[in-house]
Amino acid sequence: MAPISYITNIQGFCAAHRLHNPALSDEENRANFGKCNHISSHGHNYKVEVTVMGAIDPELGFVMNLRDLKHIVLQVVDPLDHKRLDTDIEFFNDHISTAENISYYIWMEVGKLLALKHPNVKLHNIRLYETDKNVVDFRGEMVDAK
Amino acid sequence: MAPISYITNIQGFCAAHRLHNPALSDEENRANFGKCNHISSHGHNYKVEVTVMGAIDPELGFVMNLRDLKHIVLQVVDPLDHKRLDTDIEFFNDHISTAENISYYIWMEVGKLLALKHPNVKLHNIRLYETDKNVVDFRGEMVDAK
Amino acid sequence: MAPISYITNIQGFCAAHRLHNPALSDEENRANFGKCNHISSHGHNYKVEVTVMGAIDPELGFVMNLRDLKHIVLQVVDPLDHKRLDTDIEFFNDHISTAENISYYIWMEVGKLLALKHPNVKLHNIRLYETDKNVVDFRGEMVDAK
Amino acid sequence: MAPISYITNIQGFCAAHRLHNPALSDEENRANFGKCNHISSHGHNYKVEVTVMGAIDPELGFVMNLRDLKHIVLQVVDPLDHKRLDTDIEFFNDHISTAENISYYIWMEVGKLLALKHPNVKLHNIRLYETDKNVVDFRGEMVDAK
Amino acid sequence: MAPISYITNIQGFCAAHRLHNPALSDEENRANFGKCNHISSHGHNYKVEVTVMGAIDPELGFVMNLRDLKHIVLQVVDPLDHKRLDTDIEFFNDHISTAENISYYIWMEVGKLLALKHPNVKLHNIRLYETDKNVVDFRGEMVDAK
Amino acid sequence: MAPISYITNIQGFCAAHRLHNPALSDEENRANFGKCNHISSHGHNYKVEVTVMGAIDPELGFVMNLRDLKHIVLQVVDPLDHKRLDTDIEFFNDHISTAENISYYIWMEVGKLLALKHPNVKLHNIRLYETDKNVVDFRGEMVDAK
Repeated sequence: MAPISYITNIQGFCAAHRLHNPALSDEENRANFGKCNHISSHGHNYKVEVTVMGAIDPELGFVMNLRDLKHIVLQVVDPLDHKRLDTDIEFFNDHISTAENISYYIWMEVGKLLALKHPNVKLHNIRLYETDKNVVDFRGEMVDAK
Repeated sequence: MAPISYITNIQGFCAAHRLHNPALSDEENRANFGKCNHISSHGHNYKVEVTVMGAIDPELGFVMNLRDLKHIVLQVVDPLDHKRLDTDIEFFNDHISTAENISYYIWMEVGKLLALKHPNVKLHNIRLYETDKNVVDFRGEMVDAK
Repeated sequence: MAPISYITNIQGFCAAHRLHNPALSDEENRANFGKCNHISSHGHNYKVEVTVMGAIDPELGFVMNLRDLKHIVLQVVDPLDHKRLDTDIEFFNDHISTAENISYYIWMEVGKLLALKHPNVKLHNIRLYETDKNVVDFRGEMVDAK
Repeated sequence: MAPISYITNIQGFCAAHRLHNPALSDEENRANFGKCNHISSHGHNYKVEVTVMGAIDPELGFVMNLRDLKHIVLQVVDPLDHKRLDTDIEFFNDHISTAENISYYIWMEVGKLLALKHPNVKLHNIRLYETDKNVVDFRGEMVDAK
Repeated sequence: MAPISYITNIQGFCAAHRLHNPALSDEENRANFGKCNHISSHGHNYKVEVTVMGAIDPELGFVMNLRDLKHIVLQVVDPLDHKRLDTDIEFFNDHISTAENISYYIWMEVGKLLALKHPNVKLHNIRLYETDKNVVDFRGEMVDAK
Repeated sequence: MAPISYITNIQGFCAAHRLHNPALSDEENRANFGKCNHISSHGHNYKVEVTVMGAIDPELGFVMNLRDLKHIVLQVVDPLDHKRLDTDIEFFNDHISTAENISYYIWMEVGKLLALKHPNVKLHNIRLYETDKNVVDFRGEMVDAK
């Protein structure tokens, strides 16, 4: 029997964004997004925690090489660094660049790379800190939209 | 299909308290609560993390407005700020003001406000830091008391 | 004799910016500012620590009311929050919005308010965290530019 | 009905280690463990978070006395402090001293003490920070090794 | 020539206090101390950083043994832990227990012990965090009270 | 007149060490260095803050390019990473690898690189965290050894 371990690599990126849905009126945008709707953008030092799980390899003592996990995370996160998310990153052209959607995007992108390189390791959680006080987690759960 | 997201808002409050059960003898109180039983009280900078979950609204990109979550948390937490919990807050008149009971109290109070204002969003976890080294979580689970 | 105390209030703001000097060529801008020159901006959670000094008032036990210091800091910092500094804040129209210049700007703005309201309290230091790894301090020192 | 609470005590220890499997060639060791295979060891300030769960005792307001939890954690962690794990601690003579295996070791050692002293309290999670960026969790799950 | 080093030991204590000057009216107390004047007290996790300076001993490589510094700090700080400062600690019976005065008190108490045990090491700074946002420093400077 | 700014870059390294002076007896070594004298070494996640000062360049808005400062710091710090300091780094063969001496060593190494590449920028302070509770600063001050 091998123990199952959850391993987490933590990285950061600095980005600007504006929360704005062009399908809504200016008034609705302001009502919903408040100062995050400010036209010339604002920004954050995002911190992202990527957690994967799997059995500990008895020969090596790890689930997967932490260097590999770090490289996968950076492959996803570096293209977001020093960018304006809503205009520069295609996914956020039609998904509001909220913390919720950013963590969902990172889940999908990390998931693709992990499936290719480490099919026995399972993506478990994406935690994203937008500020010290506001955090979101995505665990791969989906629900029928009404 | 919409992704389910967990969002967390983090706030703090500064409060004094004394751990003391009048149904126990002074000796039993000292044995169980140690220096937390000190008669003239002591205090903490409590940090509370309130996590709720729900589907991401495709039009707005969030589970609920973070401003609303923050307001709900502050409505519960501000009345505890700069107070002595065991004497000033009714609930702690007959519940020892341990971190366990404070997190349970915050769960119930946040839960009431959330049910009124955001019935589709579910309360998921209350994490309370009493110090940097001592933390409790309450997730709404109850068990039959013996 | 009264003890002299240094008191610090810490606040944060979230802003976007682009480092770009229109007097330089595009190539020079890229060479000097690297990815901070990215055209559509990027952003940070700035943390600012404002330190003032003065004698402890024997009747009140403080140098100045911490509430007052907090209000002064917020009066300066809130207009920067959720903005793009280089385009939205006049001072940064002709000063590159580096951490060095932002801390210099905050020094001057806090200094004006402090001189008006608390002439006996002296501004001592502005510390600005742009990220967890990059920090600047300004202490009011000036030197002859060559 | 009594609420179920999860309580966490956080402690640290400073230790050296070398990742090296004598069953592998030097080349394989370097390929897998990189600079962690450096012959004369390197070290970390490890931070460990031990989480247990149980019903809140209505008379005392806690799951178990936090002092007791702290003592159990220290009984396990102190023998690791200011040691070189792979040579000084027997378990790591034949288990690579990765963060995954250290957290598994702490789970087993804390579990034994907890079962003896607090049979009604259940061990829930061991979180181990090797650095600010690399974290592992072990929750007692085992899987059939292939 | 020996290098001069500044060494800092950091400790914490949990205490309650009330800011109240009996020489002032209730109204003046409320106006000056706000919610810190609340009658049944409130509290904090105080963090204190004690910095001393001296030449590095070439034989031992340190200014003074860090264990000794830690013991001196704890000798001063432990009597404040789990107490209500304004009523339990004599000094604060006639000095308002503001962060400014607490850091001044710690300076004097640490200074006495250091002078006895390590006359060649000089006390340099006391930094006290009352919360994450409010910090004071005392460096031994005194000024003529008006 | 140009403002003078202090800029700080923060990096980390993970290293093992043993405090031991071969000129002293085993008993003296144990008495002075306690568990840091443990024969098979122990280790830390060191955090180092390098502060330099200079006038703000009006054209570029910075004292020196933060990238350059970061590269200089890493050139000094990376050779210490994942090493055992007292045996692997020549300077610590005859200087005890205390935090005091490590910060002194980093001062000298950073100073050489800075003098070569940025002669107008002055090294101001090296702060080294050995743990969260033990910190040293070196500011370039020397004193006549007795």
